[in-house]
Amino acid sequence: MAQTIVKFTAADLREMAQRYRTQLINSVTGYKSVSLIGTKNKQGIENLAVFNSIVHIGANPPLIGMISRPDSVDRHTLTNIRETGHYTINHISGEWVDRAHQTSARYPEHISEFEAVGLTASYHNDFPAPYVKESAIKLGMKLVEELSIASNGTTMIIGEVLSLTLPEACLGNDGFVDLRKAGTSAGSGLDAYHTVTELKRLSYAKPDQQPEFIITEK
Amino acid sequence: MAQTIVKFTAADLREMAQRYRTQLINSVTGYKSVSLIGTKNKQGIENLAVFNSIVHIGANPPLIGMISRPDSVDRHTLTNIRETGHYTINHISGEWVDRAHQTSARYPEHISEFEAVGLTASYHNDFPAPYVKESAIKLGMKLVEELSIASNGTTMIIGEVLSLTLPEACLGNDGFVDLRKAGTSAGSGLDAYHTVTELKRLSYAKPDQQPEFIITEK
Repeated sequence: MAQTIVKFTAADLREMAQRYRTQLINSVTGYKSVSLIGTKNKQGIENLAVFNSIVHIGANPPLIGMISRPDSVDRHTLTNIRETGHYTINHISGEWVDRAHQTSARYPEHISEFEAVGLTASYHNDFPAPYVKESAIKLGMKLVEELSIASNGTTMIIGEVLSLTLPEACLGNDGFVDLRKAGTSAGSGLDAYHTVTELKRLSYAKPDQQPEFIITEK
Repeated sequence: MAQTIVKFTAADLREMAQRYRTQLINSVTGYKSVSLIGTKNKQGIENLAVFNSIVHIGANPPLIGMISRPDSVDRHTLTNIRETGHYTINHISGEWVDRAHQTSARYPEHISEFEAVGLTASYHNDFPAPYVKESAIKLGMKLVEELSIASNGTTMIIGEVLSLTLPEACLGNDGFVDLRKAGTSAGSGLDAYHTVTELKRLSYAKPDQQPEFIITEK
């Protein structure tokens, strides 16, 4: 069946309505991680914010990056990370995506998004930043590097994983984590959340052989 | 039902077997974008490589980032982008995830992964880098910034979207792209690909009102 194809040029992208462009460009990077970032400022006020720009940087040492916008609700997160050096990454489950999404509202600084949206702050082993009790997979992070992106004034925050908590049922013998079993949502665009069902895993690719499906589950 | 929880400390992560850690840390960032990056070197040899570290940087100007490892098959991609200043991002459809994954094999530089894995290079409007004909969503990118990540020697490549092609059927009135309709796969870990079915979209979050589901589809 012939499909109608739409093509946008650089000029089209430059000239389109801002909101339309924001939705479009946020969508076309593909599915993405959506997680809640938990922080606390020096005065002890907790903050919780949904981020969809989390990216793997390296496994040894275990490093994870995320992009913080310069002029938004994310700022409390960035300020708190700079103040305290610590934050948490908490996966979002399908049953409460609405509560997670609600953290993106522009609450004033003295309001804890945990309370405002109905999620529970929890603390473990003297780690200074709050975890989300409802999250199945939780990471305790230490800030190790900040990079300024000159092209648009955003900041890349890189943290090292100091602590990782997850249900044993998700964890495979080889270290692979089946995110479906943790109930983790995938994100797309600015406001879309997806439950994921099908999984296919492929063997390590070598030039002289065909890849094999090592797991195929619907 | 009580779940058994596994907890890894920083020391656990440091001391575990390398392959296990690589799987684990690659998994716990959540679902992620998986796309094929198409490039061509100065001698005209095409390269195609799967990347799962694509991240939204900003919509105005439209900027997308990705992480390149220092010591891997990705190097041809990085070298070619530096040489020519251009590359393409191509979404991966569920029907041919095995061919996409196979681009991660360490083919020698003179081999085109397009031919080796059975995907088709296509060129449009004098854009210097090859697109993947089989991809439903394709982006033509220009290198605008490179950032060195000191913590582990990786590189963040930031490009501007010069061209965007997608099926009209995916594109909503507000610019949102329904990736399910494009057949785009989600990634997880190092070697897992997922078909996504359910979609929930939420209204723009405001402090004084509850979020609403504006779309809920299974």
